[in-house]
Parts: sequence; structure tokens; C-alpha cells
Amino acid sequence: MTATHAVFQTIALVVRPNTDGIAESVGTVVDFLRQGGYEVVFEEQTAAHLNPAFSELRVMNAAEIGASCDAAVVMGGDGTMLGIARQLAPFNVPLIGINQGRLGFMTDIPLDGMQDALARILSGSYKAERRTLLEGRVVRGGATIHVGMAVNDVVVSRGTGAGMAELRVDVDGQFMYNQRSDGLIISTPTGSTAYALSAGGPLLHPSLGGIVLVPIAPHALSNRPIVLPESSEIVVEIVRGRDISVNFDMQTFASLQAQDRIVIQRSPHAMTFLHPDGWSYYHTLREKLHWNEYPSSEGKLI
Amino acid sequence: MTATHAVFQTIALVVRPNTDGIAESVGTVVDFLRQGGYEVVFEEQTAAHLNPAFSELRVMNAAEIGASCDAAVVMGGDGTMLGIARQLAPFNVPLIGINQGRLGFMTDIPLDGMQDALARILSGSYKAERRTLLEGRVVRGGATIHVGMAVNDVVVSRGTGAGMAELRVDVDGQFMYNQRSDGLIISTPTGSTAYALSAGGPLLHPSLGGIVLVPIAPHALSNRPIVLPESSEIVVEIVRGRDISVNFDMQTFASLQAQDRIVIQRSPHAMTFLHPDGWSYYHTLREKLHWNEYPSSEGKLI
Amino acid sequence: MTATHAVFQTIALVVRPNTDGIAESVGTVVDFLRQGGYEVVFEEQTAAHLNPAFSELRVMNAAEIGASCDAAVVMGGDGTMLGIARQLAPFNVPLIGINQGRLGFMTDIPLDGMQDALARILSGSYKAERRTLLEGRVVRGGATIHVGMAVNDVVVSRGTGAGMAELRVDVDGQFMYNQRSDGLIISTPTGSTAYALSAGGPLLHPSLGGIVLVPIAPHALSNRPIVLPESSEIVVEIVRGRDISVNFDMQTFASLQAQDRIVIQRSPHAMTFLHPDGWSYYHTLREKLHWNEYPSSEGKLI
Amino acid sequence: MTATHAVFQTIALVVRPNTDGIAESVGTVVDFLRQGGYEVVFEEQTAAHLNPAFSELRVMNAAEIGASCDAAVVMGGDGTMLGIARQLAPFNVPLIGINQGRLGFMTDIPLDGMQDALARILSGSYKAERRTLLEGRVVRGGATIHVGMAVNDVVVSRGTGAGMAELRVDVDGQFMYNQRSDGLIISTPTGSTAYALSAGGPLLHPSLGGIVLVPIAPHALSNRPIVLPESSEIVVEIVRGRDISVNFDMQTFASLQAQDRIVIQRSPHAMTFLHPDGWSYYHTLREKLHWNEYPSSEGKLI
Repeated sequence: MTATHAVFQTIALVVRPNTDGIAESVGTVVDFLRQGGYEVVFEEQTAAHLNPAFSELRVMNAAEIGASCDAAVVMGGDGTMLGIARQLAPFNVPLIGINQGRLGFMTDIPLDGMQDALARILSGSYKAERRTLLEGRVVRGGATIHVGMAVNDVVVSRGTGAGMAELRVDVDGQFMYNQRSDGLIISTPTGSTAYALSAGGPLLHPSLGGIVLVPIAPHALSNRPIVLPESSEIVVEIVRGRDISVNFDMQTFASLQAQDRIVIQRSPHAMTFLHPDGWSYYHTLREKLHWNEYPSSEGKLI
Repeated sequence: MTATHAVFQTIALVVRPNTDGIAESVGTVVDFLRQGGYEVVFEEQTAAHLNPAFSELRVMNAAEIGASCDAAVVMGGDGTMLGIARQLAPFNVPLIGINQGRLGFMTDIPLDGMQDALARILSGSYKAERRTLLEGRVVRGGATIHVGMAVNDVVVSRGTGAGMAELRVDVDGQFMYNQRSDGLIISTPTGSTAYALSAGGPLLHPSLGGIVLVPIAPHALSNRPIVLPESSEIVVEIVRGRDISVNFDMQTFASLQAQDRIVIQRSPHAMTFLHPDGWSYYHTLREKLHWNEYPSSEGKLI
Repeated sequence: MTATHAVFQTIALVVRPNTDGIAESVGTVVDFLRQGGYEVVFEEQTAAHLNPAFSELRVMNAAEIGASCDAAVVMGGDGTMLGIARQLAPFNVPLIGINQGRLGFMTDIPLDGMQDALARILSGSYKAERRTLLEGRVVRGGATIHVGMAVNDVVVSRGTGAGMAELRVDVDGQFMYNQRSDGLIISTPTGSTAYALSAGGPLLHPSLGGIVLVPIAPHALSNRPIVLPESSEIVVEIVRGRDISVNFDMQTFASLQAQDRIVIQRSPHAMTFLHPDGWSYYHTLREKLHWNEYPSSEGKLI
Repeated sequence: MTATHAVFQTIALVVRPNTDGIAESVGTVVDFLRQGGYEVVFEEQTAAHLNPAFSELRVMNAAEIGASCDAAVVMGGDGTMLGIARQLAPFNVPLIGINQGRLGFMTDIPLDGMQDALARILSGSYKAERRTLLEGRVVRGGATIHVGMAVNDVVVSRGTGAGMAELRVDVDGQFMYNQRSDGLIISTPTGSTAYALSAGGPLLHPSLGGIVLVPIAPHALSNRPIVLPESSEIVVEIVRGRDISVNFDMQTFASLQAQDRIVIQRSPHAMTFLHPDGWSYYHTLREKLHWNEYPSSEGKLI
């Protein structure tokens, strides 16, 4: 989807902490945005570690950014984007990702070409890409004892040295299977290039309305990844296993017990990434996954 | 989706050819349907091999069935269903699959319990399940030289002993990759339990609007299966390779040449399966894939 | 290898604890062996849970069995065999495995046919199969702080919710790779049908002199399982990660720190399984892995 | 294994055909060897395409090289090495591989550093690495109708659009399984980085005495790669399927029929590669397989 017009006035800046020499890059972005007539504000954690250098900028927390900003520029890697995206999701602030040399799946604008890309996006020449989030709640004996939200994935997994987990999975009220494994990854399309991929899952195009279940080291070799519609309600029940935990994008809730259930659904919130017009998801995949590099090309060619 | 009412009057019967002792089973089904007040007709190929035993039944080809019948009952395995489904797809005749002892993914009603299941479906207590089909055309120098339709998959693959194929894939006008491999499977959710699964693809729930691309023995280990929205237009161009062919559900069009392009999209037609109310897709998966059978359960438990 | 003669006199009996109704089966085995003129002794843990019923039998610990017994009959599953095999390995006592209904990879004689199989084995008509074990030591700052032995595998893995592990692997003094993953399985051929298989490893024939390294959910998709000669010395160094532990057949040593090294080699000890003549390893694989059962056979056949 | 002394006098030169600008590189190698006092001869196919430029050099076929040469220097990619290695295997001529810019698994010396590497090897500072070959024969009705030899792999596979193959596999006279698939790869350690890897097989260290069987798109999801001792006799019988062929390193023997058997064993011949001292197999793996490159590192780190 390409919009030909959009009015951006106030831009939040979110910067990865503890990055050597980042202040200079941030200065360049701040100057560029101000010269373009945009108001720039700092996300509060960003301000905490960069403040001395930019003490004149306003500082906002996620809710204030949600109320006041038209977009957030995120400088860092996918981890930085992951953290802020989950915080800003309820407020539907569009996100623009700038990497610092290493292309990210979500931070896809290189710092070098930042000025041109930002200029195009902020002038309205962008592709807006909507990404689904998951939300989950842990239910014990009828009561919800924990809630979480995930940009990438919800992971239910056994503790180290704790034998296997046995998990019962139901989808939309129908029994799917009892699975014995190290755990189960429930992933969005965004998460399909992260942990789910390492565990053997497929790539999901972001515009596919899908959620993928990827078992981790399952006992049954036929327990293959399965892609469900994003409207699905997925219930994972702990049947057996010690030290089982559930992670929402690596935020851990530990000490699950037998019969605890994790109920997972698409979040009512979503993220929107803004890419410069002409951006291609497949270009990012090619670069990140080293497609078109062949270990054995010569041996096979005739 | 469950309809509470539907009017079935004329039912076509399609039976797998060359099955020993099938005539008796067919007789049971015919009698059951007639006693229920339904008119029964034979699909023409079915008639050709069963005719002596049922010479009083009307015989119709696919187009006539499409014009006159309210449903088709298919007796056989998934292969039988595959063949007739592709023929009947343009006419949107709902399909009911009866297997003869071995559960099929698409022929999910056992002959034993056929009477109860048919009675419930025909009285309106059914779950209707829509399945996407693919259509493809082979384009050479601007001209379409072949068209095909697939219930399961479109497969572009190299000839035996012919070195690898190099295929260029574009999706919705965007370059995805050049892939060196034995070939590429483009599969519907229905096909995701067939060849695509053997080649390492994920399962796709039938109600997911998705198409999965599964490379066959790709050189680049990061060439993983990718699930696209079913609205995608997929173009596979032959870059290099000898004896490359394209198969639509195993119907082969051979002798592709470099620069030939295969253009694949969701078909405007779809299939509709009717299942008895209470039917579960996951039940079929569990049975067919032997889920919940663990080779090494004891060695892992402590 | 088939021996035509061997003299068995004293047989140790090892029985899985907490198995309902096992006493009767044990009685049958004890009577059968005594009637054959063999002296039967109980392993001490077995005696502890079965004693009241068999109080007249001598009780021995592993070392005493090693000194006095010509073979050990193990009744239970692969888990039971795993435990006693590691204890008896230093004493080279041949092992005979009897399962109680569910075929095991290592306990391959069904209780039902136990009498015929035991008679043949004890009369010298057996196939002796040697199985490699691994031993490992944890080295911290030059000092060995833990040692372990494994029938199946040595597993180095990250804690739950602890981010990934980064492990450096050297083989025979040569740097192999830095691997980012959930962990690494170093498995014997015996273990290749257990956890290593679930994590994507190949099967290794027991008579292959090999050790397989199977990464668990590795970040780099090209980090594939690699099979090394069993003479290899494998060093896994903790580069980064929290709550990393090493498990020897599920016996956990936790709290590894950065720069700790796990040094793994073939054990000087080995296990010997005795199978009735005519036994086939492939038969066990076929049964346990459900080979020759095809989810999609009909859909593919033409 | 490192030899401290060896006497090389006559060196054969084998060069990849049809490589632009290769004559200059060949000239450099020829001059370098002659200046070192070695006699240089041309393999006959090399002579055919390079002759005008080097007409003073002696020309030999494989048998003559086998009788007269102390080593063969192969310039090209792994494909070039593959071809000549199979021809020279019966004569046990050590092989030295020089690539022209792109590192090969077998041609591991870059042209740039060729002089130093050759000098060290020819002065006796080398690591000699032995590689197993396979030989196979096709038996029809008791008669051998074809024989072949393979450096990488023997591949039995179905024809395009020909449905699946059903293959019966026996090892050392024991039935392993009936496999339904696209085919079966029987690979040496050398071949484990080629086609077998693409089809999901493990890496085998060259000094492992092993052969790996890798099914291609098997119907049974538990038909996993299996590594056998290199002493194994593997018999693949065609049970069912059309247009089945067997390939020895891509040399095709087509038109196999039901009940044809392919009998595969380690060849009595072997190849010996000479590497400069200090060479590491793992270095080549790291480079070729892009180990230590992570698509998703940032998203996973905490």
C-alpha cells in the first residue's frame, strides 16, 4: 500500500542504548529532522542514556508518544525495534527503522542513506506495512495469572535438564495434539525470521494473515510446523514437565504448573512499519539469509 | 461454517476404478441414497468400469454433473478425489469423500460409517470447507503455450540426470530469488500434506489464505519454505537447466526452455468439501501423520 | 559377530522400578533362569523395590555385578537400560534387554518371547553388539570441576528465557565454529535415535565408529549436523550465555560460566548388548520409526 | 598425517576447460614447477584445449599419468576435480587442487597463494587426506548390465512427472526398508557437502569411515538420513516406478526396470588429496557454508 500524502509533524526518536559513538549519528538525524521542520522528541529511555548531549529535546514515555507523535524513528537493531514496538503497539504509532551498518529485518534503512529515505517517507512516499502481534494470558484454575504481548513469538519451553515437556494444544476449541518436545513456538510472520526459523519453521510473508506453530525438537518426527489463520485461538496446556516457562518475545514468566493453560490470540493492536517507496521485503530476505550463495555450485553444474 | 438447511436432490457418484470388490460397496451406497429419496447418477468414467452392475443409472460427464447435481459422493482415496475435484471445480459441486478402509486427507468418511455420515450431511448437518485451487500458464516469448489447474500443487522440476535447475522467482512483480535446486513446489493448503510435506514444507490449515513455496533440494541451505498470501502472483522463470518440466497435480508439461515463464495464481474456482458436523481437520492430521506416537519416549522421560 | 560358545553362570537382574504388576513377570524370568541352572542375583536398587517378593536372592551393587556376573538381564524400557548401562560400563558386563510390551531401541526382546530368546542367547547363539560411550569433563581455569559419562549424549544448552548460547567448538585442536543456538548435542550412535533425532540429526549405525554433533535451533541455517570419527576430541567452550548447563544422559551439571570448557571423548569403556541370533537392527528401526507408513501414499500414486 | 619427506619428480597438470584467461595462470604454474626442477606433463583433455600455448609439454592419458606421475595438480573447481579424480582413482595418484578465485571443497588452494602452497607440499610439508570412493553395479536378472564409480554419490531417482519411486533397501543382507520417495542418495563423506547436503543429509568428516543414505522427499517423515559403516554392502532394488535412473556423480544410467538391483560398496580404490601443512577441513566448511553468519542475531541477543 502506498500513500501519496500524509502529514507528519512530531517525530519520536528511539535509540539503542550502550552503542559507542551513537551520539554523533543521533545528532545527524535530529538535525536533519529539525531542518525539515519536524519537532523531535526523545523516548524516555533513550533520553536517559543520551541526555547530556541533547538536553534541549522534550522527553516522552510510550503513552505520551502515542498521544503526541506521528511516527517513531528507531535507531538500532531488530532487538531495539522489538522492545519499543511492543510498547507503542497500543497507540498505533508508525515505526521507521534505521540500522547502524547491519541490515535488520525490521530496521531496514541504513544510516548512510537515512536522509534520502526519511525525506521520502515523511513527504508521503512510503509503503505502510501492517504487522500482527500476539497476546497471551496464562490461566491457572480459572484465573488469569499473567498476560503478555509479543511482536515475534510466544514460546512455551521446558527447563534445562528437566526432561521433556508434554503439551496439549487445542485450536478454536478443537484438540490438535499432545506434543512431547522441548517446547512450542507460536510465531507471527514477523517472528518467522527469528527463533521459529532456527527451529525449522517456514518463512511467513508479513501480509499473510497467519500464525505458525513450530515444535522445538519434537519426539514425533511428524510433528511438523503448521500455519494457522491469524483468527485462531490457540490454547497450550501443560500436561507434564518441570520448570516450564512461557516467554513473550523473551520476557519470561516461569514456574508453570501442570494444567496451566496459555491462551494465545492475535492482539487487537498491530504495528505499522513505514518503508521508503520501492522497498522490497524480498530484498531484505535475500540479504539477511544469504540467498543466492551456493556452497556446492560448481560440483553440481554440468 | 455449519448450515442448518440445504436441499440435496441429485447426487453424482464417482468411484475409483479397478478396485476389487467395489461393486458391492457401491451398491450399498446407491441403495442408501435412493431409499433416502435422492436421485443417483454415475460419473462417466465410473460408469465405464462399473456399468454392467448398475446399467439402470443415468451417466453424466463433469459438465453435466455441474449443471444437474447438488453434490458428488467420491468413493476411493485422495487420488480419486484429486482427479474429479479438478474436473468439477469450475462447476462448484460440493464434494463428499468416502474411503474404503484407509483414511484419506480428502476422503475422510469410512465406508463403515457411511450411512450415518451421509444422512447427517444430506439433512443439512454439515461443515462446508472451501479449498483453494491454483491455476498456471506457461508463457514462451509472450504467448501462452499451456494452461493447467491444480488442487495440490504446481511443481517445476529438472529432468533426471540433468544437473540442477536454476529458477528465477518473482512475486507480485518483485524479484524474490534465483534458486538452484531440483525444482520448486508451489502448493495449496490441500497440497501441503502431500508432496510439499515430503520436501520439507509446513502444514497449512485449509482455511488459511496461503500458498507455500517449497524448494526441492536447494543448494542454498537458507532457501527455506515460504508462505505467501493466496492473492500472490508467482512467476517462475527457467534460467538454466535441461529437461525441465512443470506438473499440475502430476499432469506433466515437459520440455520447458530457458526464459519460459510459469505464471501461477489462485484459481477463480474453488472446491467445497462437505463433512459431517463435528468433523475435525486435526483428527485427520493426527491419524494420517501418526501424531502422538513417539519413537523414543521412554529414553527421554525421567 | 556371532559367537558359537560362551559360558554364562551368574546372571544379574535389573528391573525398572515402580512398574505395576512387574513382580509376576520377574518371577517368571527368575524361575526360567534357575531352571536353566543359572544363578540369579538382584541389582541393589531392583532389590529395594522388589525385595519382599524375592528375599531369597542375593543382592549386588554395580561393582559386585561387574566382578561376579556374566551378564545382566534388564527388564524395562530404554530409560532403565540407560541408567544401568552407564553404571556397568566400567565392568564390561554384557547386557540383555527385555521390554514389557513396548519395543525399545535397547530393550528389544518382548517379555512374551523372553524364554526362547534367553535360551538361545545363554546357549551361545547370540549376536554381540558393542556400543560406544562418551565421557566428558568440565574444565574451569585449568581445573577439572566435573566429570560425566554418557550412553546417549552430552548436551550443552542454555537456560530457559536466557537468550541464546554462543559456543565455540574445537575438534582435535582445530577450530570448527562459533555457534549461536539453544545448545549442542554430542551423541553416540546409541543416542542418535533419541534427543539428537528430535533435533534433526541423522541415524548412526551402532557399528559406525562415529560421534554426531547436532546443533539445537542454530541461528545459522547452515549449521548442520556433522558426523566425526569416534577418535575425535571435542571441546565446547562457553563463549556467552546465561544459565548454561551440561547434561550427561539427562544428568545435569548446571551453572556453567563463560570460558568453561567441556572436553568430550569416547570413553575407554563400552557396552555390549547380546541379541538372539537373527536379530536385526533395521527391524527395530522400522518398528520404532514407523517406516513404511505413508501419510500421503494414495495422493502420489498414479 | 604429516609426512616430512616425499619425492615428487613428475607432475601432471589438469585444467578446467573453457575458462577464459586460464592460459596465463597455467603458464605461471608451469613455470613455477619447472623452475623447481619438476617435470610437467599435460593430461590429454587439458592438452586438447590448451595445446597451442603449451605445445612443448608431454601429453598423457589417465593411465599414463598413473604410471608416470607422482602427483596431479588440478586447476579449476570441484567439478573439474570430480572428473579427473574418478579417472585417476585406480592409479592412486595424489591430487592437489587449485581454485581460480572461488574456494572449492576439493580445490582448496587459491591461485594467488599457489606458489607458497605448492612449494610446501612438494617439499614434503603436506597433510595427506584419503577419501573413499563408491562403486556400484546394476544387476538385472542375475547379470551385471552396468558398472560405475563415484567420488560424491550414487543417486537412484525417479523420472520427472513419473510419480514416486518405491525402492527396497537391504544392507549387508538385511532388509532395511521399502522407501517411497523421489529417490535415494548414497553418498561418501566427500559427497556429503554436495547433493546429499541439499537433500537434508548431515556432513560427514572425510576421515569417518562412513556412507550416508539420504532419501529425497520421502513419503514417510521418519525416513531420515542414516550413516552406515563404509564396509556396508548396500542393495537398492527397484520395486515400482517409471523412468528410474541411477547416477554415478551425475553420469546417468537410465531406464531401470522393476526388480533391477543396484549393488553399492566402497571402491577398492581411494583418492588422496595433498594439502599444505596446517590446512584445516573446518576452515573450508566455515568458508563454504557461511558459518558464523547469523540472520537474526540482534533480535535474539539480550
